[in-house]
Amino acid sequence: MKILFLGDVMGRAGRAAITERLPKLRADWGLDFVVVNGENATSGAGLTAAHAKALLEAGADCLTLGDHAFDQKEMLSFIEQEPRILRPLNFAKGAPGKGYRLCSAAGGRKVLVTQVLGQVFMKRPFDDPFSAIDLVLKAHPLGGQAQAILVDMHCEATSEKMAMGHWCDGRASMVVGTHTHVPTGDAQILPGGTAFQSDAGMCGDYNSVIGMDKAEPLRRFITGMGKGRFTPAGGEATLSGLYIETDDRTGKATRVRMIREGGRLEAAAP
Amino acid sequence: MKILFLGDVMGRAGRAAITERLPKLRADWGLDFVVVNGENATSGAGLTAAHAKALLEAGADCLTLGDHAFDQKEMLSFIEQEPRILRPLNFAKGAPGKGYRLCSAAGGRKVLVTQVLGQVFMKRPFDDPFSAIDLVLKAHPLGGQAQAILVDMHCEATSEKMAMGHWCDGRASMVVGTHTHVPTGDAQILPGGTAFQSDAGMCGDYNSVIGMDKAEPLRRFITGMGKGRFTPAGGEATLSGLYIETDDRTGKATRVRMIREGGRLEAAAP
Amino acid sequence: MKILFLGDVMGRAGRAAITERLPKLRADWGLDFVVVNGENATSGAGLTAAHAKALLEAGADCLTLGDHAFDQKEMLSFIEQEPRILRPLNFAKGAPGKGYRLCSAAGGRKVLVTQVLGQVFMKRPFDDPFSAIDLVLKAHPLGGQAQAILVDMHCEATSEKMAMGHWCDGRASMVVGTHTHVPTGDAQILPGGTAFQSDAGMCGDYNSVIGMDKAEPLRRFITGMGKGRFTPAGGEATLSGLYIETDDRTGKATRVRMIREGGRLEAAAP
Amino acid sequence: MKILFLGDVMGRAGRAAITERLPKLRADWGLDFVVVNGENATSGAGLTAAHAKALLEAGADCLTLGDHAFDQKEMLSFIEQEPRILRPLNFAKGAPGKGYRLCSAAGGRKVLVTQVLGQVFMKRPFDDPFSAIDLVLKAHPLGGQAQAILVDMHCEATSEKMAMGHWCDGRASMVVGTHTHVPTGDAQILPGGTAFQSDAGMCGDYNSVIGMDKAEPLRRFITGMGKGRFTPAGGEATLSGLYIETDDRTGKATRVRMIREGGRLEAAAP
Ligand SMILES: [Fe+2]
Ligand SMILES: [Fe+2]
Ligand SMILES: [Fe+2]
Ligand SMILES: [Fe+2]
Ligand SMILES: [Fe+2]
Ligand SMILES: [Fe+2]
Ligand SMILES: [Fe+2]
Ligand SMILES: [Fe+2]
Repeated sequence: MKILFLGDVMGRAGRAAITERLPKLRADWGLDFVVVNGENATSGAGLTAAHAKALLEAGADCLTLGDHAFDQKEMLSFIEQEPRILRPLNFAKGAPGKGYRLCSAAGGRKVLVTQVLGQVFMKRPFDDPFSAIDLVLKAHPLGGQAQAILVDMHCEATSEKMAMGHWCDGRASMVVGTHTHVPTGDAQILPGGTAFQSDAGMCGDYNSVIGMDKAEPLRRFITGMGKGRFTPAGGEATLSGLYIETDDRTGKATRVRMIREGGRLEAAAP
Repeated sequence: MKILFLGDVMGRAGRAAITERLPKLRADWGLDFVVVNGENATSGAGLTAAHAKALLEAGADCLTLGDHAFDQKEMLSFIEQEPRILRPLNFAKGAPGKGYRLCSAAGGRKVLVTQVLGQVFMKRPFDDPFSAIDLVLKAHPLGGQAQAILVDMHCEATSEKMAMGHWCDGRASMVVGTHTHVPTGDAQILPGGTAFQSDAGMCGDYNSVIGMDKAEPLRRFITGMGKGRFTPAGGEATLSGLYIETDDRTGKATRVRMIREGGRLEAAAP
Repeated sequence: MKILFLGDVMGRAGRAAITERLPKLRADWGLDFVVVNGENATSGAGLTAAHAKALLEAGADCLTLGDHAFDQKEMLSFIEQEPRILRPLNFAKGAPGKGYRLCSAAGGRKVLVTQVLGQVFMKRPFDDPFSAIDLVLKAHPLGGQAQAILVDMHCEATSEKMAMGHWCDGRASMVVGTHTHVPTGDAQILPGGTAFQSDAGMCGDYNSVIGMDKAEPLRRFITGMGKGRFTPAGGEATLSGLYIETDDRTGKATRVRMIREGGRLEAAAP
Repeated sequence: MKILFLGDVMGRAGRAAITERLPKLRADWGLDFVVVNGENATSGAGLTAAHAKALLEAGADCLTLGDHAFDQKEMLSFIEQEPRILRPLNFAKGAPGKGYRLCSAAGGRKVLVTQVLGQVFMKRPFDDPFSAIDLVLKAHPLGGQAQAILVDMHCEATSEKMAMGHWCDGRASMVVGTHTHVPTGDAQILPGGTAFQSDAGMCGDYNSVIGMDKAEPLRRFITGMGKGRFTPAGGEATLSGLYIETDDRTGKATRVRMIREGGRLEAAAP
């Protein structure tokens, strides 16, 4: 299968990039399955029902979220109506929605998508992601029900991201990080056959501070005091993420490529 | 000028990659100036005098350090003897050595190199890096005494790295992050003419957990309990960093390229 | 001198306890000087001009703040008009107001009050408090211009609080912690003559979560998800703090007593 | 029942205070059950078998530990042989030992002791303590098998400690914090009948930095650089903790008193 994972969509600029360009990319690159991380699509904080629909209509087969999953309160109920939206497995005891799903891909194939939150340097504490993901992977052996398994490791620390890659190596088709909003250049296939990239980066304006207009974050860093709210930067977004090809029989990755499309960053295509 | 910055050298594998390959790269790529971050060159923790000498002899014009600057106690005195080694500007009130230096490059040109530690998600607290770097940049206007100015922003958070890039934009030739040991794929020239990449990545084995042999970090993440020490992974290292070309008159960047050479990651050359 | 320091006033219940009871305590205990920490007096977050005036009129000679100093935006200008309000020395480069002041006490005596923020476990980074306080204490030797010197160490970690006590020992009359909203039972005179208590505790309702109505904090801890804002708990407040007696000639403490008055906690008077 | 809980024993000075004074206190105060937190009894880091035996022989009926539970490696096996030693419920997936125990008290009565680690400001991440303790308390209703239930909440943040108090209110006889090494002066019986104190404090030398000789911690705070290891301070220890009386029928607390005995702090007895 040809699978594309796109990182955290940042506000209007990120949404526009998805809705305007993803349909063509899907066709041009012959994609079988697309996952988009939507946790920052609405004003940089959470995801409304309307914006979720727009991302799905543009060609996402599944949307993942993150620590900002329910910043938009309507997602607390919308996630129960729209099974193509996932929140992290270990978000909170009382969280609505699901943390993994067996999704349908072209040709009757199945792709299991799951997301988990890391514990290092996060603003709130979350329970152990390694045992959470282990349960899901043990219940769904790669190449069984699912022709491909995609893990979104939503966290800050590179050590935790890389450890999760190795923990799933041979058991998932792809482990990709999200949350830092900067793509990493370490795409590789791990020894057991799992494609890995520490962070997918964001779909947003890279002339910014992690997708936010730079004025206010700079003011806080320089003076130690804020003046207003953060708002997403409005320049043309770069779509950023990871492309893999998998063997439908084994579920393992056969090719991996970092993706950057449009905006300020140098292009990288499949 | 053609300038190469290489990220955190991890243990023996990282040192071997530098000593065996840097001389040839320096010649092949026609480099005028090379900076190497050496904070993890000795067993992954700090830098001995012998290892510092080896990195300098292999072609580094300047070595930067980081939060691990003095993990090897002999660096407390050696840094006073070897001016080509810098520690972060804001390491500690009582730290030996210097945080910036006007270095000599080919053709009588001068390159100012400086390093600063971030405050977000770091294990120890450090004083404000934005005012520290401001003092240095105000005293050394780009295109004055220094034909190029290179800033190593040693920190964890992508927000702080990007904010530092914008803070120095137009005042430095390059702002590059270090410390996370994973290269980022966001190399760009900011609007004011400063080359920027959130992290240089490490010169180390990428089949690892941030350069460490993966067994012990995985044990700690999975079981919550450790059994031994961390030791650097021994597979072939990828040299990882940032290449820029600068205009000697203005000091601004005219070209920027992410660099990956050898080991498991896809090659990227000037 | 007989000096009383009262910890973080929490919302309406805390303010009521100060305005209703402090005048009588001041008379009954023969107090010469009173400091009140006001950083949470307005709805638990910051301090308005009106509430500051009420605390001063009730008998506070000086108000200190903390990390919440400017949560109420009007304090940004009011602190410049009312010199009896102090913000932490190391709050931020761009902060209005002052971090120490030589205040007037009965009989023409002077009391220097100063506040500093710690670095450990705080939500935002602050610059080194130890060198900040050192500058102030070196410029104002105890028993010189000031008959007494009071240091409010606003921070979370007990290690940093105790270290600050020893750092100022013999140079201040009192070092008292604030910020945790729980009084500590370790009042003592350190070897050099400085009275010390790790935390003054809050002036608030102790049937709460650090002064906040317990329902919402409990919901967040138990379910991992919040539903609303934090609001101060409304039960009768306990005034909580530290009482010392000092020798006007040396400025050193001759007596130290933990104070608890009213509300749920067992009473402790001078 | 008359129950005494003593906080973190710090090194040799703390152990000496227990072995020399606890037998007499046990007799003088007519104690029925004594718990001692032993996580720092051996050189300030962990607990050896020999030191555990000494604390038990001196009159502890049960020893709790904390984040330092296994700093002394021999505890990994000794805890399996000595059921009177407990580690936190949520220490780690792979931890040996147990997190709660139904202990025997005088007159055939039973006391359930349990310990849990908090998540806020801790050096390592731990899983949710609120659901962990809930499972234990639901399986052991107060006044059922156990005449008294004692919860040791080992954590840093006062908010998390107070929240745990309310979470267990009416379901435990006592919730007492440990870990900060400073006793809090907020002993009270919560509305549901549970005795509560945010922190028991340490059994150690209070002329110190949280029980450690102050020279090295001060050096690190002041200069930003360390020179050696931390070693426990050697001055006379204050025994510090919480005393409660309970109703054997309901298990609820009928009296609560902060305890301080010996050393530098003002004495407080039942
Ligand atoms: Fe996130
Ligand atoms: Fe995000
Ligand atoms: Fe580092
Ligand atoms: Fe490093
Ligand atoms: Fe406060
Ligand atoms: Fe505070
Ligand atoms: Fe502890
Ligand atoms: Fe402890």
